Amino acid sequence: MKEKFVVTPWEVRGAIDYGQLVKDFGVGTISEEQRKHIANAAGFEHFMLRRGIFFAQRDLGMWLKAASEGKPVALYTGRGPSGHTHLGHLMPWVFTKYLQDAFDCPLYFQMTDDEKFLFKEDLTQKQVAEYTQENVLDIIAVGFKQGKTRIFSDTQYAKTIYPLALEVAKRVTYSTAKATFGFNDSSNIGEIFFTSMQSVPCMLPTIDAREKGLIGPKEFVPVLIPHAIDQDPHFRVTRDVIDKIGYPKPASIQSKFLPSLKGGDKMSASDPDSSIYTTDSQEAAEKKINRAFTGGRATVEEQRRLGGNAEVDSICNYLTYFFEEDDKKLETRIDAYGKGEILDGENKKYLAEKVTAFLKEHQRKREAARKVVDKFVVSD
Amino acid sequence: MKEKFVVTPWEVRGAIDYGQLVKDFGVGTISEEQRKHIANAAGFEHFMLRRGIFFAQRDLGMWLKAASEGKPVALYTGRGPSGHTHLGHLMPWVFTKYLQDAFDCPLYFQMTDDEKFLFKEDLTQKQVAEYTQENVLDIIAVGFKQGKTRIFSDTQYAKTIYPLALEVAKRVTYSTAKATFGFNDSSNIGEIFFTSMQSVPCMLPTIDAREKGLIGPKEFVPVLIPHAIDQDPHFRVTRDVIDKIGYPKPASIQSKFLPSLKGGDKMSASDPDSSIYTTDSQEAAEKKINRAFTGGRATVEEQRRLGGNAEVDSICNYLTYFFEEDDKKLETRIDAYGKGEILDGENKKYLAEKVTAFLKEHQRKREAARKVVDKFVVSD
Repeated sequence: MKEKFVVTPWEVRGAIDYGQLVKDFGVGTISEEQRKHIANAAGFEHFMLRRGIFFAQRDLGMWLKAASEGKPVALYTGRGPSGHTHLGHLMPWVFTKYLQDAFDCPLYFQMTDDEKFLFKEDLTQKQVAEYTQENVLDIIAVGFKQGKTRIFSDTQYAKTIYPLALEVAKRVTYSTAKATFGFNDSSNIGEIFFTSMQSVPCMLPTIDAREKGLIGPKEFVPVLIPHAIDQDPHFRVTRDVIDKIGYPKPASIQSKFLPSLKGGDKMSASDPDSSIYTTDSQEAAEKKINRAFTGGRATVEEQRRLGGNAEVDSICNYLTYFFEEDDKKLETRIDAYGKGEILDGENKKYLAEKVTAFLKEHQRKREAARKVVDKFVVSD
Repeated sequence: MKEKFVVTPWEVRGAIDYGQLVKDFGVGTISEEQRKHIANAAGFEHFMLRRGIFFAQRDLGMWLKAASEGKPVALYTGRGPSGHTHLGHLMPWVFTKYLQDAFDCPLYFQMTDDEKFLFKEDLTQKQVAEYTQENVLDIIAVGFKQGKTRIFSDTQYAKTIYPLALEVAKRVTYSTAKATFGFNDSSNIGEIFFTSMQSVPCMLPTIDAREKGLIGPKEFVPVLIPHAIDQDPHFRVTRDVIDKIGYPKPASIQSKFLPSLKGGDKMSASDPDSSIYTTDSQEAAEKKINRAFTGGRATVEEQRRLGGNAEVDSICNYLTYFFEEDDKKLETRIDAYGKGEILDGENKKYLAEKVTAFLKEHQRKREAARKVVDKFVVSD
């Protein structure tokens, strides 16, 4: 019997069967034609697309059609600022930047500080605000377009967001929220309300474009949300009500999770060793990689003879999901690892070099970002 | 068997047994000493206090004690802007002005535009915003102190209120909200969250006084909420959690409802003839009074002989609750009515004169208020 897995916006555990998730959530897969469309717009096909790391979608075709017709389109993604940024968070942002470059469109980046305060028992709003500031540096460091990227937190942008959230909240019953998110009598009343706030950025691009006269008062700006698949329940709720409020259903393009360095399908927030944080020092990152779970054998002799198990090897996974863009090099390496030609130590060293180079560059951009925060962040 | 009555923040019906309500809600009555304390501070005893129209309280003694010790204190009341203002709304505001004058303290006036939008199926936010503007004129016309009165709506002040509401929401379970307000699976998720927003003005006076350095960082400003008793469930929830957030439990002083012109304990929002609106013309007001439910008899002869029933007479009620401040005159009139010495027509004429004089003066102040709205209303 297969291990049971759980994927909700607040909990991911077990061995995830992404095929099953596509069925359970009722999302579509990404077609060859859609991949080509995106690759054409971008000038190249992103490895996250090619490798099926972004693997599911809703209404992606409609969004791409609008974009190809030259209509204004927008992107929306978000971050729940409950801690420092790790590579698992960064992964969909890197892909979102690829999409923003490809379609040269506005990006709305929501910091759900309210959510994290409400759902994490021990977090204070002060702590969440600090993490928000830290996370914003990482977001800017990814390279989103200045002037086309608006970052905002739910509490600091509440005068804009709360009234729009009310339009959603009025149309969502407790029954729906309970069925979608698994709330019960002991859920707090903020948790129950929260999904309304996450719906709002789907409306903002249309509101802004109408205000600027870029579209007519009855026209819409289609929104595409790149996100990890655990967030899909929020957007199911959004899609159920948003057309009744007068806005189009958002499209989405959904990713798998960056696997854990400790093995398994997703890093655990409670174990900082299971992923690498953008704030990690070179030494800390190297240490985590050296301790990472591998597909290696008990002895060098055995590994030479039997080969490593690349499928469960977190080093190979990290290369696949994030650090080895070159398909040929990746394939050669995984093949060699499986044949026992490459041992764990060598593999780890290879990843560590890539990771530390990435961190060095990211941290440089992250520091530079401090100077332009006010060019990206808006508040009421 | 007694008729069953219902009193919740969103529904009041049946023949209200206020004595039973005091027990059901667990509130206290107002003591002789407390009445005297207020009268001393004001220089006179308000008839609403003397006649038991304001009849219940929570922690009133503590608030009065703080005031008498010269500590900073504040008042908080509110309005759900779902329509024009009628005399039933105005009644607690008139008393609130009396308290503000007596204690010369700041008043926080919350317009719960979010609540009315969420709870009234057919209302749009645009309509609620229009009613908010209209209601604000009535509030200012009551004569609250400029510079000491802050009027704000939940949506326009959301950046200030929403983050504080989250502190409440995190500590209130669905179970509590369900038990307190009677929510069920078909309640919308905004309704469930809303009570958090109504808690916030209990914190604002302390926050403001600390910011201004009027009190130390660990001192509090006790808040007294004059309100009609149907709002008590909100403040029960507030009182349960607010000290855990670091603010004092609010005190309250609670009123009965202005009886309906159609007979019964409270005017009905669905029947505009059951109360007089501040926007009514003289003719409209007179018409309502002429059609009002009275304690009269079938014929003049019968009424002369048997007398009227002042207890159910809406004219006598209006005089008692609002328009006849002079106890002696009121007593004489009610006595004469009960003896059949005064007939309905004469009684109605007497009330109509008082009402039209009041409306004329209120409407003058209401127009004048337009010029000072920005001296009272704050937004983010």
